Amino acid sequence: MNNFIYRNPTKVLFGKGMIARIRSEIPANEKVLLLSGGGSIRENGVYEQVMGALEGFSVTEFSGIPANPTYEKCMEALALVKNNDISFLLAVGGGSVIDAAKFIALARYSAPGESPWEMMRNNAKAPSQALPIGAVLTLPATGSEWNSGFVISRLETNEKLTCGHFTVFPQFSVLDPETTFSLPKQQLRNGLVDCFVHVLEQYMTIPNHAPLQDRQAEAVLSTVIEIAEDVMTLQNDYNSRASMMWCASQALNGLLNRGVIMDWATHDIGHRLTATYHLDHAATLAIILPGVWENQIVAKEAKLVQYGKRVWSLNGSNEEIAYAAIHATEEFFRKLGMGTHFSDYGIDGEVAAAKIAATYNGADQPILGENRNINSTVIYSILKSRT
Amino acid sequence: MNNFIYRNPTKVLFGKGMIARIRSEIPANEKVLLLSGGGSIRENGVYEQVMGALEGFSVTEFSGIPANPTYEKCMEALALVKNNDISFLLAVGGGSVIDAAKFIALARYSAPGESPWEMMRNNAKAPSQALPIGAVLTLPATGSEWNSGFVISRLETNEKLTCGHFTVFPQFSVLDPETTFSLPKQQLRNGLVDCFVHVLEQYMTIPNHAPLQDRQAEAVLSTVIEIAEDVMTLQNDYNSRASMMWCASQALNGLLNRGVIMDWATHDIGHRLTATYHLDHAATLAIILPGVWENQIVAKEAKLVQYGKRVWSLNGSNEEIAYAAIHATEEFFRKLGMGTHFSDYGIDGEVAAAKIAATYNGADQPILGENRNINSTVIYSILKSRT
Repeated sequence: MNNFIYRNPTKVLFGKGMIARIRSEIPANEKVLLLSGGGSIRENGVYEQVMGALEGFSVTEFSGIPANPTYEKCMEALALVKNNDISFLLAVGGGSVIDAAKFIALARYSAPGESPWEMMRNNAKAPSQALPIGAVLTLPATGSEWNSGFVISRLETNEKLTCGHFTVFPQFSVLDPETTFSLPKQQLRNGLVDCFVHVLEQYMTIPNHAPLQDRQAEAVLSTVIEIAEDVMTLQNDYNSRASMMWCASQALNGLLNRGVIMDWATHDIGHRLTATYHLDHAATLAIILPGVWENQIVAKEAKLVQYGKRVWSLNGSNEEIAYAAIHATEEFFRKLGMGTHFSDYGIDGEVAAAKIAATYNGADQPILGENRNINSTVIYSILKSRT
Repeated sequence: MNNFIYRNPTKVLFGKGMIARIRSEIPANEKVLLLSGGGSIRENGVYEQVMGALEGFSVTEFSGIPANPTYEKCMEALALVKNNDISFLLAVGGGSVIDAAKFIALARYSAPGESPWEMMRNNAKAPSQALPIGAVLTLPATGSEWNSGFVISRLETNEKLTCGHFTVFPQFSVLDPETTFSLPKQQLRNGLVDCFVHVLEQYMTIPNHAPLQDRQAEAVLSTVIEIAEDVMTLQNDYNSRASMMWCASQALNGLLNRGVIMDWATHDIGHRLTATYHLDHAATLAIILPGVWENQIVAKEAKLVQYGKRVWSLNGSNEEIAYAAIHATEEFFRKLGMGTHFSDYGIDGEVAAAKIAATYNGADQPILGENRNINSTVIYSILKSRT
């Protein structure tokens, strides 16, 4: 087990009716900016609950933050923050809105003359302070409500980059499973796959004498498999939605990866696929993950076998179990209705493979995977296998 | 799943060599009181590491805090705190030392004329502020390093009472597995049993639509079973000790019990057994737990069966699995060398049963268990079954 440090100060308020509590979580006299996405919170009652809880506060609103939140949109919100002396950001929505809030919270303190985009290219350039953030989660998926990471896309340059900073843990996050009742199936499917792959990126590498972390990861994976059908088929089922919300938050609150060796190749490639083809994040993961695993099957065999036995109850030789575990994972995605090949999305896989692999050429580009052996050539071959 | 709130702000520094980091975790100019136990830290190198890290700080020392830390000893330390204007408590030791630090940290702010013992009898009477605390853990067991609870005994009255307060989460806790290398077998055994039973008190009740919490609890239980033999037989095995430390901390950091229904009958009875007979805490748990389960086997059957199947791979009818799961648990304790009956400790079980059950008579006494059906009469019968 590797050395590690862990601290996660976010206060989680979980359950029905908890939105009303944000009133006592935001200090009086704060000037609040309510950040939201495409408008669904105005149709499912969440907006009314939030505004009711904020009665008496000075509230400015900024909506329209898109999935894969953009630098351009965040900069619009930043101008509003500065012009209105906003002192508290309340993100109401999914991971995209929360990620945008984190970027804006830090960008508020960017040095004069420095572009806030610099911190996305070099995390060390993040300012040392940020506006306080609160979150009301309405789409369980990314885990952003309980961590300090965020992903921002820049349309101008086709970049989708990740940053993390200890100042942007939400002060509080409300997780009310009832807010998910109105979600369309596509977003539920995306959330389940995103959560599942988050766990696997932290787990499916090589054993590192971390049996508790392994079993905790398997606990999330097994639970997601157990609840998936209810989540997809029962619209107002509180219990399965509650477990989905708790799984997605636990998948990326930082505990599963303490002391272990991580991968994240699938995410890195996936971000570029989204930036280029505007595919949903989860769709990119479902396409790429099986390809990465097949390509790395020798290095990952021990963990694939452990996963296959414990999570999918597979039997056979180690090689058989490893392949069957990859197959079971892809079948799980497909049963959710998620395409796992480029052709499912009407994309020419060979063209996409060439285009994405090309972005990994150049001395400043990362070599991916826990063994740092997935370069542009390997990425081409992985993506080509997913046509 | 029930509604819940979760926040745990403690910073965990995990791994070999991490004691040196406390230097940058304690603000400069703090007047530090180093609290410790019976003296083992002076024999295993921990004291030297801590003092090295504290070079330049004003450090006062207070040692001799006993297992089952006493009110009387804590009040001695409190006098030192007041006389020396101590501003930071550094607990170096096991859960007893950390628990004592929490009590002292709050007692520092008890209202003039009010006995600090009042908060143990009525948690609502705890002061609203506390001295900051840091911890260097040397005995993985109680989880106190990562939560806000503490248990204090009062010799004068034979009381052993529990309190919890959000102000006494340690600001940081160092978990260095190497500090456990010199632990005697009795303390390792105690730590494994304590951790194991902590999980079970939060798990072995009735299903509450919390499949992730269930599986996370089973993850800790399965890991403790997996590592137990290495912990007990390999003195300097870093990996098994690291997992033991991580299991014990995760067992009681508050995550496992969010939204679920808890028991804690075994602990309540156990505390009184320790107060009266001065048995090790873990020994009382090993005696009582199987008795509580057998007594409550009908109510607990669904969870006993789930536990039996998933943690012990048991087969058979539900009733068979439930009994076999109790048996497997007791056998696990016995294999560690832990006595599970009064006779193992030279105690007359019938006398003890009568004596402890008598403390539960009276209108102010709790009725225990998740179904609030374990009263004095039931406790007598449970304890009598453990002669």
